[in-house]
Amino acid sequence: MSESSAPVQPHSGFADGLDCDGDTLREECGVFGIFGHPDASAVVALGLHALQHRGQEAAGIVSFDGEIFHSERRPGLVGDSFSDRSTIERLRGRSAIGHVRYSTTGGTILRNVQPLFAELAGGGLAVAHNGNLTNALSIRRDLVRDGAITQSTSDTEVILHLAARSRSPRIIERFIDALRQIEGAYALVALTNKKLIGARDPMGIRPLVLGELDGRYILASETCALDIIGAKFVRDVENGEIVVISEEGVESIRFAEVQSVRPCIFEYIYFARPDSIVNGKSVYAVRKNIGTELAREAPAAADIVVPVPDSGVPAALGFAQKTGIPFEMGIIRNHYVGRTFIQPTQSVRELGVRMKHSANRAAIEGKSIVLVDDSLVRGTTSVKIVRMMREAGAKAVHFRIASPPITYPDFYGIDTPEREKLLAATHDLEGMRQYIGADSLAFLSIGGLYRAMGEESRHEACPQYTDHCFTGDYPTSLTDLAIAGPRRLAMLAEAD
Amino acid sequence: MSESSAPVQPHSGFADGLDCDGDTLREECGVFGIFGHPDASAVVALGLHALQHRGQEAAGIVSFDGEIFHSERRPGLVGDSFSDRSTIERLRGRSAIGHVRYSTTGGTILRNVQPLFAELAGGGLAVAHNGNLTNALSIRRDLVRDGAITQSTSDTEVILHLAARSRSPRIIERFIDALRQIEGAYALVALTNKKLIGARDPMGIRPLVLGELDGRYILASETCALDIIGAKFVRDVENGEIVVISEEGVESIRFAEVQSVRPCIFEYIYFARPDSIVNGKSVYAVRKNIGTELAREAPAAADIVVPVPDSGVPAALGFAQKTGIPFEMGIIRNHYVGRTFIQPTQSVRELGVRMKHSANRAAIEGKSIVLVDDSLVRGTTSVKIVRMMREAGAKAVHFRIASPPITYPDFYGIDTPEREKLLAATHDLEGMRQYIGADSLAFLSIGGLYRAMGEESRHEACPQYTDHCFTGDYPTSLTDLAIAGPRRLAMLAEAD
Amino acid sequence: MSESSAPVQPHSGFADGLDCDGDTLREECGVFGIFGHPDASAVVALGLHALQHRGQEAAGIVSFDGEIFHSERRPGLVGDSFSDRSTIERLRGRSAIGHVRYSTTGGTILRNVQPLFAELAGGGLAVAHNGNLTNALSIRRDLVRDGAITQSTSDTEVILHLAARSRSPRIIERFIDALRQIEGAYALVALTNKKLIGARDPMGIRPLVLGELDGRYILASETCALDIIGAKFVRDVENGEIVVISEEGVESIRFAEVQSVRPCIFEYIYFARPDSIVNGKSVYAVRKNIGTELAREAPAAADIVVPVPDSGVPAALGFAQKTGIPFEMGIIRNHYVGRTFIQPTQSVRELGVRMKHSANRAAIEGKSIVLVDDSLVRGTTSVKIVRMMREAGAKAVHFRIASPPITYPDFYGIDTPEREKLLAATHDLEGMRQYIGADSLAFLSIGGLYRAMGEESRHEACPQYTDHCFTGDYPTSLTDLAIAGPRRLAMLAEAD
Amino acid sequence: MSESSAPVQPHSGFADGLDCDGDTLREECGVFGIFGHPDASAVVALGLHALQHRGQEAAGIVSFDGEIFHSERRPGLVGDSFSDRSTIERLRGRSAIGHVRYSTTGGTILRNVQPLFAELAGGGLAVAHNGNLTNALSIRRDLVRDGAITQSTSDTEVILHLAARSRSPRIIERFIDALRQIEGAYALVALTNKKLIGARDPMGIRPLVLGELDGRYILASETCALDIIGAKFVRDVENGEIVVISEEGVESIRFAEVQSVRPCIFEYIYFARPDSIVNGKSVYAVRKNIGTELAREAPAAADIVVPVPDSGVPAALGFAQKTGIPFEMGIIRNHYVGRTFIQPTQSVRELGVRMKHSANRAAIEGKSIVLVDDSLVRGTTSVKIVRMMREAGAKAVHFRIASPPITYPDFYGIDTPEREKLLAATHDLEGMRQYIGADSLAFLSIGGLYRAMGEESRHEACPQYTDHCFTGDYPTSLTDLAIAGPRRLAMLAEAD
Repeated sequence: MSESSAPVQPHSGFADGLDCDGDTLREECGVFGIFGHPDASAVVALGLHALQHRGQEAAGIVSFDGEIFHSERRPGLVGDSFSDRSTIERLRGRSAIGHVRYSTTGGTILRNVQPLFAELAGGGLAVAHNGNLTNALSIRRDLVRDGAITQSTSDTEVILHLAARSRSPRIIERFIDALRQIEGAYALVALTNKKLIGARDPMGIRPLVLGELDGRYILASETCALDIIGAKFVRDVENGEIVVISEEGVESIRFAEVQSVRPCIFEYIYFARPDSIVNGKSVYAVRKNIGTELAREAPAAADIVVPVPDSGVPAALGFAQKTGIPFEMGIIRNHYVGRTFIQPTQSVRELGVRMKHSANRAAIEGKSIVLVDDSLVRGTTSVKIVRMMREAGAKAVHFRIASPPITYPDFYGIDTPEREKLLAATHDLEGMRQYIGADSLAFLSIGGLYRAMGEESRHEACPQYTDHCFTGDYPTSLTDLAIAGPRRLAMLAEAD
Repeated sequence: MSESSAPVQPHSGFADGLDCDGDTLREECGVFGIFGHPDASAVVALGLHALQHRGQEAAGIVSFDGEIFHSERRPGLVGDSFSDRSTIERLRGRSAIGHVRYSTTGGTILRNVQPLFAELAGGGLAVAHNGNLTNALSIRRDLVRDGAITQSTSDTEVILHLAARSRSPRIIERFIDALRQIEGAYALVALTNKKLIGARDPMGIRPLVLGELDGRYILASETCALDIIGAKFVRDVENGEIVVISEEGVESIRFAEVQSVRPCIFEYIYFARPDSIVNGKSVYAVRKNIGTELAREAPAAADIVVPVPDSGVPAALGFAQKTGIPFEMGIIRNHYVGRTFIQPTQSVRELGVRMKHSANRAAIEGKSIVLVDDSLVRGTTSVKIVRMMREAGAKAVHFRIASPPITYPDFYGIDTPEREKLLAATHDLEGMRQYIGADSLAFLSIGGLYRAMGEESRHEACPQYTDHCFTGDYPTSLTDLAIAGPRRLAMLAEAD
Repeated sequence: MSESSAPVQPHSGFADGLDCDGDTLREECGVFGIFGHPDASAVVALGLHALQHRGQEAAGIVSFDGEIFHSERRPGLVGDSFSDRSTIERLRGRSAIGHVRYSTTGGTILRNVQPLFAELAGGGLAVAHNGNLTNALSIRRDLVRDGAITQSTSDTEVILHLAARSRSPRIIERFIDALRQIEGAYALVALTNKKLIGARDPMGIRPLVLGELDGRYILASETCALDIIGAKFVRDVENGEIVVISEEGVESIRFAEVQSVRPCIFEYIYFARPDSIVNGKSVYAVRKNIGTELAREAPAAADIVVPVPDSGVPAALGFAQKTGIPFEMGIIRNHYVGRTFIQPTQSVRELGVRMKHSANRAAIEGKSIVLVDDSLVRGTTSVKIVRMMREAGAKAVHFRIASPPITYPDFYGIDTPEREKLLAATHDLEGMRQYIGADSLAFLSIGGLYRAMGEESRHEACPQYTDHCFTGDYPTSLTDLAIAGPRRLAMLAEAD
Repeated sequence: MSESSAPVQPHSGFADGLDCDGDTLREECGVFGIFGHPDASAVVALGLHALQHRGQEAAGIVSFDGEIFHSERRPGLVGDSFSDRSTIERLRGRSAIGHVRYSTTGGTILRNVQPLFAELAGGGLAVAHNGNLTNALSIRRDLVRDGAITQSTSDTEVILHLAARSRSPRIIERFIDALRQIEGAYALVALTNKKLIGARDPMGIRPLVLGELDGRYILASETCALDIIGAKFVRDVENGEIVVISEEGVESIRFAEVQSVRPCIFEYIYFARPDSIVNGKSVYAVRKNIGTELAREAPAAADIVVPVPDSGVPAALGFAQKTGIPFEMGIIRNHYVGRTFIQPTQSVRELGVRMKHSANRAAIEGKSIVLVDDSLVRGTTSVKIVRMMREAGAKAVHFRIASPPITYPDFYGIDTPEREKLLAATHDLEGMRQYIGADSLAFLSIGGLYRAMGEESRHEACPQYTDHCFTGDYPTSLTDLAIAGPRRLAMLAEAD
């Protein structure tokens, strides 16, 4: 029970985060909540375990036992932190919400681990948030000017402050008052002393589903968290909708005017688990479709199709089935990962250690291969994998990317590098091919991506999905970015 | 870095604290700060080590390095938590403040460990507090009604909120605005990005001294924290005074109208270390005087004088020197204390285990003894010690208490039991003697106590010391008590 | 640095291990060693990371720095325990060996974590062992009778005692003396103050390979541990061979008379990583061949082929390619596993929680499926998976097992349940089908297995592989079993 | 449950221990055992708590539950490690023994923490040892030559090996066989599956007493461990005696031929707790006598007598009572000690930090003082204390040492510096006075010391006490020293 907090920052200076060579996209969070179950916290722990792919850094659960809220927030995996009887027993009560979050560079600050809790005039309010607000910095500045004390650097805390300052008498109204002031992407689950609340932003960028287990309602980021406990999927929470679950059942409130839903397309490409159904579509089926479209758009004469596991598997299967080229597990993934190994000396660094992926030489040697990966971010991993394929004896490496080129950063809860570090933002196709060292390189087109989603085409005026990373077409205004500029905003985000 | 927080409490319910058999008085805290020293945090750690007797539960240090505030707050002893190089190196900067706090029943909540920090509109403010506010609950209620989010149950947080909400432009003015709204006892050290601040309540109930080490100023609860590093004592911070230390030197501000100082008399009886000089008086000398007065008021025909160590030693020496009866260490104290031992079965409990004190039979056997203890709270320990003396062969036990009977609870930072558990509040002298099992029992009179302090007598209209535990004469209004009532207030305090 | 040891057992009583529902086979260990590398311990840590699938419970490294042996042994994953700079720096020296071991039920005893070390008359000897001795109990009994003190319950310690008691002057001779007294399966790496030693039992049951990195020799359980650091495969250590690596190079000693090699066939079916080459054969290729043979022996009319991931994937691919039925990832595996979740109440247990595998409904629904798993032990997992497939809408489930029925326990380092808990030992094929609930069930034949290995058939007189789990044909005598009987031996093994 | 072992040492090299500025003598250990009590382990934990002054580094308990031995060995204080219910409950059984050991420089090796346990041919044997063997190195060398594997560097393990190798059928006979081969000082408690055994070396150098609690027998290093649980003192275990406690009661066996008892005189001067009765004499009374003798031999004209607390208190009282000079607590001891503070920079080191003792200026200022300390080892602490007294205003400092000059090292379980670091071994009295900076300096004479013990004089031919530190008259042969030489022996001891 020791806290080693990161620097407490004054307005005049910020600790610069470590610049690690992160060549993946990372989702910020997963959320889960249940109302009226005798083992509420145990069920939340299981739901969070199923959502672990959405965040491995830390997890937290808040429960309400009819009188008192209980809270446990810990670094590490759900299965390590929330699997013992005593922890679950401390989290007494029939209603509970939980949260998993991703692993940041540098030290984690426990007070940023969610759910957050505040005592409002009308009672307690706990909130867990998946997404990112685009005007949190601006609001926080106003709040501080007005005498608020902020404890975390989390944008979620802003929601609590806005609810606390609302003049509405009922908590639910205070919560809506808060939502009406924030911009960005959010799937929220919240717990009061009477209710479990779910809310999804006006565009429905981040996912949230309503489920049911023996008559008790559940909220979760993905359907796979319903499946783990055998709960039934009821429906998606809609964009701009608040779902209020109480002893009286489920009430739906629209807090934002009606507009078209525009979910984040990256959930299908990378984030969601393949067995989840997101906004009514099977993630696995979409990914296989992507492979089919990719085979159609950019076929290759090759002996085998090899996925970069695990995320490249469904698209590679689609590619293989479409082309008839045999699918082979030419790369083996090491699933036992702990902390990153220190490579103490230059001589070890030069070994070019293959920590996560290794070549399956027996499958690769002497073959011309189609290599399928889900996306291309910085390209540093791709360079290593192509080289590994060649060292294992591949005759030719045709690299196929199961998404369009990423050319813009995200501000809605996906951790993307700065624009100048995105390979596709600074290189043309041939430049990327040379950098990566592949014999050929192709991306899925944006049209192909929409076809894989079952759409005829992208509606340019009003796109069906949030796809700004490929198009630069951001779905909301970016207030903080306009005020702070990209570099400073990144620093603030690092500090989070 | 794992947090297991105690219950988060709604307005409608409170977790009832464990009722342990605490038969001592406990000070809430000790504070220390230094400005402009190259090893500020190392010096603070040493200062807190010297103040460890004022709180053993947890310790914290906040430093400022010119740009950023750094914070470490940990359970346990200073010597365990703040003695390693890496911790001290993380607490960079030339100014730092620190805090030790006492051990509560039940689990400790790290977010209550001080110093507390808040980002105000004009910059950061860290505060460490020794004492207790008597209107914190009332203020907190107003703050929550007005939309503030409170993170800890500490009354110190109220000061931060009041400063945050002040409309004054400068931090020091905001700090004074806050002090003008609070009631009770406080010795505060605070750190901003430019200044080290000390403040003492309008009655000067809790102690605070100004020291100096090679031209750098220090604030500390007691002079023993100056001595450990060879710093010079400059003067006491006065009641109702703010001392502001900056690159320009020391500035003194009076924030409260002039009134007589009225320090807590318990610092002399029990809390302060015997080698400290509190408000200009040697604690050791006062305690010896108390022994002398006690010998004059309540002599006893005995073979030896035996102190209950360690706090009873100086008074016993005074008693022995006054009467000429030999002083003997008839009770040995075990200084190796960890967590309380579990006594798993009835058979072990019945052993009447002597964890802390044991009889020195060779000194006691066949002797008539005068037993000197500093104070009498519940009396449970006294019962055990008298019985232990008899079992070791004492012919007679004359119990002498080096303070008057405690008949009223404290609300200024001393952890006293409820009134009905104070032995002297429910028994007359003969009843107490019988309960304790002594052959005779005597307390120091209130007049004797004031004489030991060097006063001719207690000024009834305007007492020279805060002595309500003996007299019921509280120095300030008790706003929260009036609102909440004693039982509820105790529950709130337990939750702290 | 706290040790909570399991019961210390007298001859007269044994603590009974927990009977958990382990429905998998578990390898005991993996070993790795390197000689003469400036970053020996860092390289060992990487090698152990690549061998992590052979044991996740604990890991240890011993290094020699020219004067002193250094040792670190810890519970948990290599990537958690041996990835920090300070640990690796403590393990100074240019030669080091390491060990990973599997997760037992109940508490782990650190003194059983390897490598073990002993100070012999001629110098220190550290040993890491993969395998199990079949006469360790008998030898230990003799040793204790003769005045030896045994510290661990590990059979590996017996080797150290035998070497210590040898009258040969040189350590290598003492080591050989020891090997000549033991029976069973072992791949050993050992470290002295001059040499790195590898040894493989006379049948070559457990695997061990010799590799080379920039002129420095390496010993490892599998080639995947060479690949992670880019080392070259030199050759397998042969059965009955000791390989002695020193500044003078590699020396080979035959300590056992020549007999046919007879490696454990389970390495191909389940234990080894698919990218490893074991005894000259690609594990991945063998597994695909198994799928092909299985398709030939037991085809099924189905819509899709679904592997139980990850181990069932290659055989399922072989099956799919042979039959032309599409391969689909119909089951998703959750790779984030911590400690087993406590399921506090009956209501949670009844949820039938899917911790590790979940159905990919979009791929399964309405389909007739061929389900391919690597082996069938108790069958409890298979029951759950078949039920999960049906609940996800599978029309029919044809279960195909990529190995013959397991009807005998192992005594060579594989953790098998008692015979009466092996489903195939107590049920006929139809009985198993009914128990599992599949529409059809088929195992690979023993002939098919040997064909998949590239053999024409099993040589009944002198089998090419150790395959007693399928045939009851144990390759060595089972001395301890004869003495102690199966139940008692199991208890001793549990205590290990 | 992680082990970071210190270097494993080959014959050819030894890790050099840190040379810390230890200016105290340290006892190696305390032991405790009880037979036939329903809460045996809880009672042992309490007994060890009372013996905590004999060793603060680590503690261990082994119990026997009728079938199985249970063991817990942990670093730190008994009150931290053995006060929780679950630990005590794991240590099941009606008989148990325990051990506390002192704090060494550098890291502790848990496998050296006692009690040690071995499985002998006739059953288990657990041993806890206070003292040190003077031929352990020689025996160990023979054992290793003869094929024994030694796990710890503890000399106690030698006893287990000798017992294991004995050809006697019964454990008690094996134990006696072992004792007959060892030289040096030992108070042992041992536990078998039937008996609790106590043994004291032929000179009775280290103390051991027999006690009784409600008919159950207890063995303990000091009587204060009986007092904590209200047990009765029965008698001292005699020199050369084995006490065997079983269901049949207490049996006494003499394993060594009769010779005069010669207990270590340092138990009275420094080690034992003042409330203990050692070999029939009150430690407190002896210390007061020492003060009286010191006052007679070396009086001083002074205003006050000041002890160096806590160990100097009784002698100072004796001095004060004899001379009539008032006794004052002129030095205050800080009892809150954790790990040693790191003093990160020169500027902090130069503060001359007073971590443990501080001057009570109010008592000292302007006074001529007699300063009484228990012994003088290196003198470094004395220098600081004299300087501290002068800085607090002492007019004159007359230093009186309550023991003779220490001029020889110990080899019987007291941790003394090498001879050249003993101040009295390299300086004459005037040289020491100048080094320390006192106005006068005097030691107790050896004759005075014996008079304080109640003897008329020291019997030069056959001294009544083990007093070689003052006289060089070692009670036993020093076999290892003769073989290894002092420097090497010290290194071996450091490695322990």
